[in-house]
Amino acid sequence: IENRQNDSLRSLMEEVHYADVAEIIDELHEDQATYLIKLLDSEKTSDVLTELDEDVREAILGNLSSQEIAGELAELDTDDAADIVAELPKEIVQEVISKISDREHARDIVDLLRYDENSAGGLMAKELVKVYDHWTVLTCVKEMRQQAENVTRVHSIYVVNDQGILIGRLSLKDLLTASTRSPIRDIYISHVDSVNVNEKPEEVARIMSKYDLEAIPVVDEIGRLVGRITIDDIVDVIREEADRDYQMAAGISQDVEADDSIWDLTRARLPWLFLGLIGGLGAAAIMGGFEEMIARHAILFFFTPLIAAMAGNVGVQSSAIIVQGLVNDDLKGSVGNRLIKEMLLALLNGVILAVGLLVFTWIWKGSFPTALAISISLIAVIVVAGVIGTFTPLFLHKRGIDPAIATGPFITTSNDIFGILIYFWIARFVLGI
Amino acid sequence: IENRQNDSLRSLMEEVHYADVAEIIDELHEDQATYLIKLLDSEKTSDVLTELDEDVREAILGNLSSQEIAGELAELDTDDAADIVAELPKEIVQEVISKISDREHARDIVDLLRYDENSAGGLMAKELVKVYDHWTVLTCVKEMRQQAENVTRVHSIYVVNDQGILIGRLSLKDLLTASTRSPIRDIYISHVDSVNVNEKPEEVARIMSKYDLEAIPVVDEIGRLVGRITIDDIVDVIREEADRDYQMAAGISQDVEADDSIWDLTRARLPWLFLGLIGGLGAAAIMGGFEEMIARHAILFFFTPLIAAMAGNVGVQSSAIIVQGLVNDDLKGSVGNRLIKEMLLALLNGVILAVGLLVFTWIWKGSFPTALAISISLIAVIVVAGVIGTFTPLFLHKRGIDPAIATGPFITTSNDIFGILIYFWIARFVLGI
Repeated sequence: IENRQNDSLRSLMEEVHYADVAEIIDELHEDQATYLIKLLDSEKTSDVLTELDEDVREAILGNLSSQEIAGELAELDTDDAADIVAELPKEIVQEVISKISDREHARDIVDLLRYDENSAGGLMAKELVKVYDHWTVLTCVKEMRQQAENVTRVHSIYVVNDQGILIGRLSLKDLLTASTRSPIRDIYISHVDSVNVNEKPEEVARIMSKYDLEAIPVVDEIGRLVGRITIDDIVDVIREEADRDYQMAAGISQDVEADDSIWDLTRARLPWLFLGLIGGLGAAAIMGGFEEMIARHAILFFFTPLIAAMAGNVGVQSSAIIVQGLVNDDLKGSVGNRLIKEMLLALLNGVILAVGLLVFTWIWKGSFPTALAISISLIAVIVVAGVIGTFTPLFLHKRGIDPAIATGPFITTSNDIFGILIYFWIARFVLGI
Repeated sequence: IENRQNDSLRSLMEEVHYADVAEIIDELHEDQATYLIKLLDSEKTSDVLTELDEDVREAILGNLSSQEIAGELAELDTDDAADIVAELPKEIVQEVISKISDREHARDIVDLLRYDENSAGGLMAKELVKVYDHWTVLTCVKEMRQQAENVTRVHSIYVVNDQGILIGRLSLKDLLTASTRSPIRDIYISHVDSVNVNEKPEEVARIMSKYDLEAIPVVDEIGRLVGRITIDDIVDVIREEADRDYQMAAGISQDVEADDSIWDLTRARLPWLFLGLIGGLGAAAIMGGFEEMIARHAILFFFTPLIAAMAGNVGVQSSAIIVQGLVNDDLKGSVGNRLIKEMLLALLNGVILAVGLLVFTWIWKGSFPTALAISISLIAVIVVAGVIGTFTPLFLHKRGIDPAIATGPFITTSNDIFGILIYFWIARFVLGI
């Protein structure tokens, strides 16, 4: 299909949604992709560009002239345009920006570049409908019609005062039913939710989904309206946050995908494996310290993987539940209560599992003291693992560190070591060695 | 504050957003909560009810009369009302429904009860703006004004034919600029995305976030428009799905929260711990089979936790990346290629780690053959663990089973066992025992 049948290709692509075109282009070779992008008009391709994989986009933009890139940016909302500009090589940014014919659009894009990507300011778009409180309804409707041209979908009309400070919002119904000469300050609704430009995206997501908002205005440090965030950007934030927590729990430290290069994947995975290696060497060292027990109770050694695995599993379970509670902001009560609860929970689980283990090992190996030593250790190890798993994320969270890092390999490894240590201590004590 | 100062309490609560009222009520005692709900008017409390924790809501509804519950339902959108009705005890459902004064609203709620909770039908609401293609613009505007009263926010105007089959949508702009006598069929846009009532919520979420939709119409098996799903419901679906996958990866099998009872938490956690116990016993049995090696090479046993931990970590890493690829639907290429890639990746990681281990163990224990045996085993174990971690979720997905189950304890446990088995085989071979 790819070679030269421009017209049929163009009309085919016109019918397809831009998200689907992006999927097709992700699969193509760089030259073919660039060819296709140049073939289609920029109203469509600009949307396609925002949906592409980052590396594909980078390759395609590298093949376009500054003029062509500026054409694409002109079609995009300011937030998407700013994201793309942020990815461009520094040398050409100025040239590209200077070629955007709509100067106001260009200014908005440059404004957005100032904000940290990981803040409300980095997420927001400049497109919004804004009216002054001293306007009359008539001026307001006239101005709005003009502003609305640049806004894909009007979610809310925001009301600001002379200083540009956000003071409320306007309902479309009130606007249409009010007399055309009444001033806006008589009819606007003075209550409006907003977020600060420096707010974390996760917090914005939490507020918007708690209050079921479809858009939220963003204000600067002194309350001036500077942009607005819509729910579709928030959906992306939620997905990314979930992906990151999930990867963290699995011991993957960067945002990678299955299709990334082996080298990227290695960089994301190796640090955690290295941590596991250190932990394993620690465990080996501990076991070396108990070497004298081997001669008499070799059977104890058979159960070290079991003890280590249980310690790891319990630790991950309890830390995951705490991390999730922190993310969803629904943890109540004090740290002390939580630790006591987890201890009771771990004790209950531990006793149930230990009884099973006791009976089984007793029958299998015929030595009650050994079976008892292993089972008692299991209970102790599970309780300690549960407490560590609960305490660590709470502690990290208090220190302002992302608690998600505490799940996965980190907890597993430290619990492995503690578990084995406790195991051999208790065994030595019970068996009176 | 709680006792009898009704007026001040009422005016205080009127100012607070319903999501915040719900948070306050979640903290109160059942009697106080019921008291507060009865105090406030049902326009507010109905929204509060939808935001409450399930068990708190159940307790409060138990204290309300059928008449009062019907009053709350009347204020809600049909999808939220249906969710609440589905939670009511069966005996009172009929009575409550019969007391809803708006019969059409009651009928819509009953219709929604028919649908599986875990489908597009279970998510959708009946509130939407629907016009027939044979109407003129004038009829259309008149009818729309009436329909829009029941719809909190108009996202789209859907066009259906005489049989009620969805055939397109209408842009507000086109409607306002067209002559009042032209029929709708001349001005509507015939392309519209829709989903089937039986579609899985996860798939609906994927479609809506891929195409950045804020609402999507739902059609039945023969294409008739039966409802619509809005983005705020989808945000909840995405959050729940992410929570579930995260918990699954951590070995928690039901949807529990940190504040649930110890008994609920035990039920969610114990099955996976039991699996770990069985795995540990399996590992113990395997090690028992290599007992004759202890006398001569006790050091080998010190490294079993290391080997088991590495097998587990690698398995979880590779399965997590595959599960995430499957969830986000961005895996490309064949299973074979993926396995080869993972094998290379694991080999690379394995060799790097094994070299470190070799040098360290050699220096520490002074025996090159032992260090070599352990290091070679590590490479083999990492490769096998990576392949199992990659293959298992792909296999489960093909069989139609949720691949998320394959991460966490399941992979860890099976990789522990395989890892230990491979380790002792290779050690025996290298050391020539």
